[in-house]
Amino acid sequence: MSKLLSDLIEALRCLPGVGNKSAQRMAFHLLERERERGLKLASTLEQAMRRIGHCSRCRNFSEESVCALCANSSRDRQALCVVESPTDLAAIEQATGYRGQYFVLLGRLSPLDGLGPEELGLAQLSERLAEGEIEEMIIATNPTVEGEATAHYLAQLAHAAGVRPSRLAHGVPLGGELEYVDRSTLAHAFGSRHTLS
Amino acid sequence: MSKLLSDLIEALRCLPGVGNKSAQRMAFHLLERERERGLKLASTLEQAMRRIGHCSRCRNFSEESVCALCANSSRDRQALCVVESPTDLAAIEQATGYRGQYFVLLGRLSPLDGLGPEELGLAQLSERLAEGEIEEMIIATNPTVEGEATAHYLAQLAHAAGVRPSRLAHGVPLGGELEYVDRSTLAHAFGSRHTLS
Ligand SMILES: [Zn+2]
Ligand SMILES: [Zn+2]
Repeated sequence: MSKLLSDLIEALRCLPGVGNKSAQRMAFHLLERERERGLKLASTLEQAMRRIGHCSRCRNFSEESVCALCANSSRDRQALCVVESPTDLAAIEQATGYRGQYFVLLGRLSPLDGLGPEELGLAQLSERLAEGEIEEMIIATNPTVEGEATAHYLAQLAHAAGVRPSRLAHGVPLGGELEYVDRSTLAHAFGSRHTLS
Repeated sequence: MSKLLSDLIEALRCLPGVGNKSAQRMAFHLLERERERGLKLASTLEQAMRRIGHCSRCRNFSEESVCALCANSSRDRQALCVVESPTDLAAIEQATGYRGQYFVLLGRLSPLDGLGPEELGLAQLSERLAEGEIEEMIIATNPTVEGEATAHYLAQLAHAAGVRPSRLAHGVPLGGELEYVDRSTLAHAFGSRHTLS
């Protein structure tokens, strides 16, 4: 096989979920039918890798120093949703009607991985809370051990700043069947039951 | 979402089997964890799209005018395997012990799509047969209606040049169960049954 073709197949494997077989299929597909779009992908990818940084205000991906979402004056300035990653932010934007602000930790507290309050930008977050506009901090870290520890730490920051912290509800997923829900989720949902009026 | 990020997600959708959701996952993965490999993919892809052409002898993908396989003097020069696409060539190289030459049609006879003998390089193939070195032409077009018509045409070319044509065996796949094999394959396999000695 041509050197350049096998280099391309190898390079495509940096994509998540792409093994040797699908990388080969992708390379052949582009060469046979999509050279123009392949070139377009190459240039867009190069620009994106070089120019996309982080918003100075919310730390989400952005090629501007302040992202479009932070710059959007029509969004609610009283609510701030804190997420671990840009992927989580995108999921909330796409699934919910939330129209407030965000703060992206780019990780979760994890001392063993060298991730402490400084790496997560928590000083910056505290400054943001001290501005006085925010009334509610919605803590949307993941329901993992580290995510819960991070949520606990964030709740303390909020309290210290006189901001009301809230947490996404956890429980049985909608459409989920009890027998297939994992035990800890079920135990949590049972313990968090609420009275129906 | 940032303009450049949504451009990247859109551009990634030129890859086969990649919808909006996986394109988004790929973009976030590269931005969060693999910028260097993302840049490497961008430059390799650009080079590959611009520089990979076709071998002047076998028509397989190659950035040289004669590909490494055609230039390899240790391969058998008496056998020529004709395939529809570079993907088929790669599959045969990887699965079989075949060590002869190849010719890639880059299609199959399909008048409605404007694919005739000229587009498939059949004049070039005839010249190749006329060189006199080739003794067997292995016809490995796909067992579709158009692939079979192409195989028939190729067999006539071979006969005209005094070359022995052969065709891959078709039948029940190894490990396949009769009840799950499609009817036409089963009928073909039944009709092509051979006596056990
Ligand atoms: Zn922002
Ligand atoms: Zn060649």
